Amino acid sequence: MIDFSSDHTFDLLTQGDRPVLARALTLIESRRTSDQELKHRFLKRCADHVKLTASNRTVRIAITGAPGVGKSTLIDRMGAALVDAGHSVAVLAIDPSSEMTGGSILGDKTRMTDLSNREQAFIRPTPSSGHLGGVGVMTRESVMVCEAAGFDRILVETVGVGQSETSVAHLVDVVLLVTMEGAGDGLQGIKRGIMESMDLVVVNKADGDRIQASKRFATELKHALHLLRPADDINVMCVSAELGDGIAQLLASISEWSQIRQKDGSWDQRRSEQRLRWFDAAVRRAIEQIASERTELDALKAELKKAISNGDTSPLAAAARYVAVLMDRK
Amino acid sequence: MIDFSSDHTFDLLTQGDRPVLARALTLIESRRTSDQELKHRFLKRCADHVKLTASNRTVRIAITGAPGVGKSTLIDRMGAALVDAGHSVAVLAIDPSSEMTGGSILGDKTRMTDLSNREQAFIRPTPSSGHLGGVGVMTRESVMVCEAAGFDRILVETVGVGQSETSVAHLVDVVLLVTMEGAGDGLQGIKRGIMESMDLVVVNKADGDRIQASKRFATELKHALHLLRPADDINVMCVSAELGDGIAQLLASISEWSQIRQKDGSWDQRRSEQRLRWFDAAVRRAIEQIASERTELDALKAELKKAISNGDTSPLAAAARYVAVLMDRK
Repeated sequence: MIDFSSDHTFDLLTQGDRPVLARALTLIESRRTSDQELKHRFLKRCADHVKLTASNRTVRIAITGAPGVGKSTLIDRMGAALVDAGHSVAVLAIDPSSEMTGGSILGDKTRMTDLSNREQAFIRPTPSSGHLGGVGVMTRESVMVCEAAGFDRILVETVGVGQSETSVAHLVDVVLLVTMEGAGDGLQGIKRGIMESMDLVVVNKADGDRIQASKRFATELKHALHLLRPADDINVMCVSAELGDGIAQLLASISEWSQIRQKDGSWDQRRSEQRLRWFDAAVRRAIEQIASERTELDALKAELKKAISNGDTSPLAAAARYVAVLMDRK
Repeated sequence: MIDFSSDHTFDLLTQGDRPVLARALTLIESRRTSDQELKHRFLKRCADHVKLTASNRTVRIAITGAPGVGKSTLIDRMGAALVDAGHSVAVLAIDPSSEMTGGSILGDKTRMTDLSNREQAFIRPTPSSGHLGGVGVMTRESVMVCEAAGFDRILVETVGVGQSETSVAHLVDVVLLVTMEGAGDGLQGIKRGIMESMDLVVVNKADGDRIQASKRFATELKHALHLLRPADDINVMCVSAELGDGIAQLLASISEWSQIRQKDGSWDQRRSEQRLRWFDAAVRRAIEQIASERTELDALKAELKKAISNGDTSPLAAAARYVAVLMDRK
């Protein structure tokens, strides 16, 4: 049992202790009432520490794309190259096969062989299903705890996006969309929302006899993006994660992209907006937490939502009733 | 002074009385504490009435696009054609020049000459700036009140989109993006978010010596959209709102689009999701309303947001403090 209120545990975390980090991530994902107080105090320490150690030097990168485009392999290669360049890399990865565990599991170790052999890397699998829900558990808090543990490159793997509140774009500095040339399917499988938020596109599996078709596809994508998002000048690059081709260029492109934005101020502005959004989300979550501690409120909400779906009540009347009970007004 | 608690007023509304409708919209946009009770009771009556009279037969259409692409003229033509086909049309329009007024003003009457001459039409201008903020005041409630007043085609004009909560896509059945062929600027001026939610695209000002270039632009757009949103098969049409060319085809396309979705169930599903989202938004708004009645909470929030921006506090700590005060926990 790790005592998350102790100075010793916190020191271990800031020294990058892997088991402590893994357990800390489990703690902050917990929705148990009994964990909330401890979790908040621990997160406060992390926030203070990150502030002191200038988390501005970290880069948070989302890697998103439909299943089968080779996200894991790409992350493996990117992560390994980043470690070799002197960075320490934390990966918050989706593990399609796993249930929740306390840390890295064999499945992911196998998926990311290059990276998992490196000392300066940490891979955190997250179950893609289960009661906590996929991307929802990879919160801003998870990123912050990884930064408190000294990681300066955070890679967040995700398939598509969730609701706007949990959108990965609100979590990271750079959104990398991974796709591949395929049987005319374009970006099929990508959920809505990602097209607006992607900053860079990678056409993966551009190798062997697929090279020419991949290049054509990249050109087509670049043209389409220029037409639909003209202000953003989104780069589209061909890589082969399998062979390692184009990885160095991809990292250079991310680095260049980051430096431009750091210089023109949009990097800080995005982070500042994310912090304000985080506040709003945290307020909502805290209210929901309080509500969830009162089982009669959960039951009421479920009942009201059913009545709304059936058309038996209007959303407005339902909301008024719910808030009256929540705020102890009536 | 109209008494919104009287049966007489409500009867007038359901008979489509224009001054009552205009004043009712002003009432529901009000954030004054003293108006809230009355507003909620009035909205409850509207909700019940709309339920009884099967608002399923209404079609809600958003018309969105950058300034200068001819949205007003297009709405004017569409609205007039819909009225001539036997519909009654309510327009919730942005009025870039006006401050808030009680109803239609000369500016909009001039902007939409065809429509404002027709009895079965109602035009509601909304100030694009001011303390209520642009699209935010055009809520689901505004649409519902128009439906209670007997309008079966609701046209919502907007420039771009706001935050996801107030996104026009959560408000309507069909999102129509208006654009035009121009000096290589593609969809410049369109805010992020709309590309994900548009259901139909109109290339306006396709007339005179612009016809060929407009057609080429429409083909390019169609190709780009097919690449980036392959599942959605988005129609791109050329029209000239000025000359009235293509308006009938556009309305036929919207009608066909609607019928397909009504048959396959996605129409009802979208409305059902919107109702649940509406509930969530109404809960948040009700909590905010309660908070705004306590000036010390407003001051606290402003102070916390400033501290977050400056990096003096973490969003989590700030949220915990705010919710503790809000819920009278400490």
